[in-house]
Amino acid sequence: MAYYSSAFSAHSAVDLVGLNMRNTCVIVPAAGSGTRMGGSVPKQFILVGGIPILVRTLNAFASLPSISTIFLVIAEGHIPDAAEVVAEWNRQPGSKGRNKAVPEISIVAGGTERMHSVYNGLRNLPVECDWVMIHDAVRPFASARLIEAAREGARLSGACIAAIPATDTVKRGHDGVVLETLSRDEIWLVQTPQVFRKQIVVEAYEKAFAEGWTGTDDASFVERIGIPVAIVCGERTNIKVTTREDLEWAEWFLSSRIEKGRP
Amino acid sequence: MAYYSSAFSAHSAVDLVGLNMRNTCVIVPAAGSGTRMGGSVPKQFILVGGIPILVRTLNAFASLPSISTIFLVIAEGHIPDAAEVVAEWNRQPGSKGRNKAVPEISIVAGGTERMHSVYNGLRNLPVECDWVMIHDAVRPFASARLIEAAREGARLSGACIAAIPATDTVKRGHDGVVLETLSRDEIWLVQTPQVFRKQIVVEAYEKAFAEGWTGTDDASFVERIGIPVAIVCGERTNIKVTTREDLEWAEWFLSSRIEKGRP
Repeated sequence: MAYYSSAFSAHSAVDLVGLNMRNTCVIVPAAGSGTRMGGSVPKQFILVGGIPILVRTLNAFASLPSISTIFLVIAEGHIPDAAEVVAEWNRQPGSKGRNKAVPEISIVAGGTERMHSVYNGLRNLPVECDWVMIHDAVRPFASARLIEAAREGARLSGACIAAIPATDTVKRGHDGVVLETLSRDEIWLVQTPQVFRKQIVVEAYEKAFAEGWTGTDDASFVERIGIPVAIVCGERTNIKVTTREDLEWAEWFLSSRIEKGRP
Repeated sequence: MAYYSSAFSAHSAVDLVGLNMRNTCVIVPAAGSGTRMGGSVPKQFILVGGIPILVRTLNAFASLPSISTIFLVIAEGHIPDAAEVVAEWNRQPGSKGRNKAVPEISIVAGGTERMHSVYNGLRNLPVECDWVMIHDAVRPFASARLIEAAREGARLSGACIAAIPATDTVKRGHDGVVLETLSRDEIWLVQTPQVFRKQIVVEAYEKAFAEGWTGTDDASFVERIGIPVAIVCGERTNIKVTTREDLEWAEWFLSSRIEKGRP
């Protein structure tokens, strides 16, 4: 597992914003080679509104003073693409050298599955990091408000996820037949960011790897070791761009935001 | 419960399409006065792409040879609006007099809740009706393919719903804390149409009313009397238009369909 970072040693927890505010790291698992949308470019590198999805995702965290470093977990073969993304990030107004509060980005080589990628990210966290946010590479539209709400939820409880309440009836089904209708009031569709106290999420992942357990989202690892996970209300626009149709929606969403004066 | 129909007696199960093919009725509960989107017009009468949502919903059923009558269940105060919708429907190419296969529309007065409206629809079904489709008034984009698939699913099993598999992780939560992560492979987000053999759905509703039970979707009534309900894969575009944002999406969806030559 190679570790590519010039940012790591350069970043310091002691800066103008203050020790306590810069103790959060973000892990963005982006090692997927998923090309479900057709073409040979993994979806995180596809452009929406002229900008790679991944750059938009990173931008969502750019203005938050609490974040020191974003660990971008990338498949070996796509590290050059990621390096370009980081270069683009550094060229942006407000980036390193212009505004010290903007997080550094470190590239970490990814694993075969999402959970391996997150684990690689966790193993590279600096000692001074107290909090970990994990966010899907292809969720470019999380608002700063949502990210801060999830961080605040975790500060109070140790672990917090963004999720939206189900608006449809939800059922369990198997082999094309309904098993039961679930109580809609209790059903949450899970998003990211998911935010954890570092010790909690590291312990949860180590235990899962030791025991050969797999989960679909990061919180499921934490739930498994008996830690209560808080929920903050996510955003319907905080979609995961995974299909061609999602991409069309994303283009529409951006153009309607521009119409409303929010580029 | 007033019953406004000239269509009812005029419709005959014996027509050019054949007895067995014309034995399905559709109930469209549209008695909601929900104005969550702002304004004083209930959402089913709002225009998308210049046409009321409700008319688009009715159009989704227009070309299906199996359907004899659509029962439009409307709040007393909005029966004049519904009558206009029906007039617009009858003016359309392919409507009554031009093509006998187009379903008739009957207006039924609605109840206070969705389940009361559906029950009012059920109590007005003609004797020769064997199959009942129930479809939300504000789901205008169900394709003919989906409607036929749901009908075929019901023909084989007696009861069938459209639903889409969850793409997000789904959790149960209470009071802002996660209770459990559900097995995603089993989770279905329920849509309409929901299609039932008439005796089954009528019995299910009568039992629920007799016992004071309430449910969120029609299939839950049927599940409750022990009848297995089949699932056919719905469509992500088959959305329920309930918020201002859904309406914006609907406008975009229609314009992108026109771009692709599917008006």
